[in-house]
Amino acid sequence: MKITNLTDTISLKRQLEGGNEEQLKTVRQVLQDVRQNGDEALRKYSEMWDGIRLDDFRVAPDEIEQAVLNFDPQLKQDLEEAAANIRYYHEAQKRDGYKLPLDNGSWLAQRIVPLDAVGLYVPGGLAAYPSSVLMNVIPAQVAGVGRIIITSPAGKDGKLPDAVLVAASILGINEIYKVGGAQAIAALAYGTETIASVDKITGPGNIFVALAKREVFGEVAIDMIAGPSEIAVLADDTAYADEIAADLLSQAEHDALACAVLITTSEKLAQDVAVEVEKQLKELPKETIARKSIENFGRIYIAENMEQAIRAVNSLAPEHLEIVTANAEEDSLKIRHAGAIFIGRYSSEPVGDYFAGTNHVLPTNSTARFASGLNVDDFIKRSSVVYYSEKTWQENAPKIARLARMEGLEGHARAVESRGWAKGGY
Amino acid sequence: MKITNLTDTISLKRQLEGGNEEQLKTVRQVLQDVRQNGDEALRKYSEMWDGIRLDDFRVAPDEIEQAVLNFDPQLKQDLEEAAANIRYYHEAQKRDGYKLPLDNGSWLAQRIVPLDAVGLYVPGGLAAYPSSVLMNVIPAQVAGVGRIIITSPAGKDGKLPDAVLVAASILGINEIYKVGGAQAIAALAYGTETIASVDKITGPGNIFVALAKREVFGEVAIDMIAGPSEIAVLADDTAYADEIAADLLSQAEHDALACAVLITTSEKLAQDVAVEVEKQLKELPKETIARKSIENFGRIYIAENMEQAIRAVNSLAPEHLEIVTANAEEDSLKIRHAGAIFIGRYSSEPVGDYFAGTNHVLPTNSTARFASGLNVDDFIKRSSVVYYSEKTWQENAPKIARLARMEGLEGHARAVESRGWAKGGY
Repeated sequence: MKITNLTDTISLKRQLEGGNEEQLKTVRQVLQDVRQNGDEALRKYSEMWDGIRLDDFRVAPDEIEQAVLNFDPQLKQDLEEAAANIRYYHEAQKRDGYKLPLDNGSWLAQRIVPLDAVGLYVPGGLAAYPSSVLMNVIPAQVAGVGRIIITSPAGKDGKLPDAVLVAASILGINEIYKVGGAQAIAALAYGTETIASVDKITGPGNIFVALAKREVFGEVAIDMIAGPSEIAVLADDTAYADEIAADLLSQAEHDALACAVLITTSEKLAQDVAVEVEKQLKELPKETIARKSIENFGRIYIAENMEQAIRAVNSLAPEHLEIVTANAEEDSLKIRHAGAIFIGRYSSEPVGDYFAGTNHVLPTNSTARFASGLNVDDFIKRSSVVYYSEKTWQENAPKIARLARMEGLEGHARAVESRGWAKGGY
Repeated sequence: MKITNLTDTISLKRQLEGGNEEQLKTVRQVLQDVRQNGDEALRKYSEMWDGIRLDDFRVAPDEIEQAVLNFDPQLKQDLEEAAANIRYYHEAQKRDGYKLPLDNGSWLAQRIVPLDAVGLYVPGGLAAYPSSVLMNVIPAQVAGVGRIIITSPAGKDGKLPDAVLVAASILGINEIYKVGGAQAIAALAYGTETIASVDKITGPGNIFVALAKREVFGEVAIDMIAGPSEIAVLADDTAYADEIAADLLSQAEHDALACAVLITTSEKLAQDVAVEVEKQLKELPKETIARKSIENFGRIYIAENMEQAIRAVNSLAPEHLEIVTANAEEDSLKIRHAGAIFIGRYSSEPVGDYFAGTNHVLPTNSTARFASGLNVDDFIKRSSVVYYSEKTWQENAPKIARLARMEGLEGHARAVESRGWAKGGY
């Protein structure tokens, strides 16, 4: 792992593949086809791309029951405990609207309303990611969303992974469809005979899924388009090199485009972590991926002092930040830009990926400057409410009419003044 | 205005112009040019498109002072009162993060951090919109954003409208630039020698501005791309036809693509409003625009009963909703989807455009199903924080490692377990 002296202009932004013209053309075709032909199009693409012929997209209740019976009870208990932790953390984000009294009986209010329906896309492929089910569904449940559905491509056997069904079952989700790819996003956005449309789509996916989400954005809401994962570790000479190396590699193993960075005030730690990374890399099952990530985007920076190091972290705005310093909590208060912060030696980043309760859907590629991890507010919306009494109207109508006329909107002025003209009711 | 019986499948979605290929090409060129050549490119495009040669983009302090001196003191006072009302309403949206204790000294937290810098685009053209300055700047100020800047195209005289400068001055904003169009969006996103970049761009603009905002989205945050305005009025036989007609026209005068709809249980009101609309249209300065809007997108629906009417409103998810019924507040509680709700005869919609305190930047084209009006949360972001003590780590590490291995992420499992291996500190 390369070691360099820290300068003030470091960045972890990577130029990301946005998909090519041909992929976009395919996605647009699929979207239009599903919009027009519904289930028939879903069947066609499932056969074409996933190689399965499905009569019924919806997962049957006994498939879910069977998955639970098949599943390791210890792992099920771990998932249940993780779910409870996630619920505990997100419950604190729930909030009410407000009502503000004005003079003369008038008032203003803000009302908070959960979304009617959301759809979670769960990617298929070799591994199953039940943690992603927990992280996406629980905030929506806490928000009070009425209908939460899951869609995911079935394997060659026509089934979804047990782990995904068990995670859904733990959360009480039973509207699950075996549809993947751009066609699944189309079904969620436009609806088909079988799958009623939703108001928001969340969850990661391959390039076709990402392009499809971008295309339907506006028709429905989407979560962020997540980029490859990142970790920045801020450490001083109180940190242990083997632990830091292991944490850096835990991000690197995700993706060859993942980014793992150490910023430290200790030259000795820098040297030792570089050695440890190489040592641990050789024993890692996902060595090839992790090595590419470390070689291309991994870096150890030696900072002159903690102030410079903290400035650098803020300029990175990393998705994940570990702080392993003598005064880690104090140092953390100087961080303005990071998706998730892990404080101290025992708060290894995977603690947050799976279990602690915070969300693992986080802003990447420096967007933590302006974006947040998935949270309960992503599943609600706000309506403002105005009630003006006759007296409040009388007092303020002339002011409002003046402001409207200043902007050249005579119709606005007349609307407010019209209450004065009114002659009779019905 | 057309009158029809209400069916359950009404919609106010309009197919909106997304800009053509040539416009997009131009915008991309401008963005790249400004990114590479900074101020020089800004000067070039200001001369090319706005017909003005600027040596200094920034509005000088004495230009702002002069604008205040020129300005009608009564109007200034109206703007100040509006600003105070808007601040009062938005202050209630401010909130703190939280810290949740866990067992064994561990804790989880959510921290709320305001954005560092935001830029407001104010469109040029014939009219000045100081209300837009108030509505965009105040929520950012309440959120605690450190740097708030405004950019707007100068007129042929090389100046910005007094009303815009006065509104900015009332709010204490003095970093104002005379740059408009796609080049202004580029400057806000990438920065130039004179204009430091921001983290979020808000404010409406023409098609070039809208396309530029879409292009820089991801690099910086943007607010919604607002569509043409809409109003739905829900009324029974207690409403006054002339007042309802005036309110419908106040939206119609905005834009030929604006949409004004009345849903009523009273056939007599329906007939009378149609007559009143025609009568008032003839006397409206913006008759041509308003007439197009009413002809193309205006409609009066007669509902069988209030339940059907409310269902219809929810399926429309209008930007603005007025409820003028015998039990308006009670009826309003059944509304799930509307950007802003105005209750009762005296809460004419322009009351909210200018003065009441609620925000007038609202979701259009049925996006109120999942989106909210501009609010303080649009100018903050959240970081999650995890602190695990040694004891909490010991108790939970095996569970976390099991979950990670289930997902095939051995590196994650080892990272969490690595704390057990550690041999010595630095």
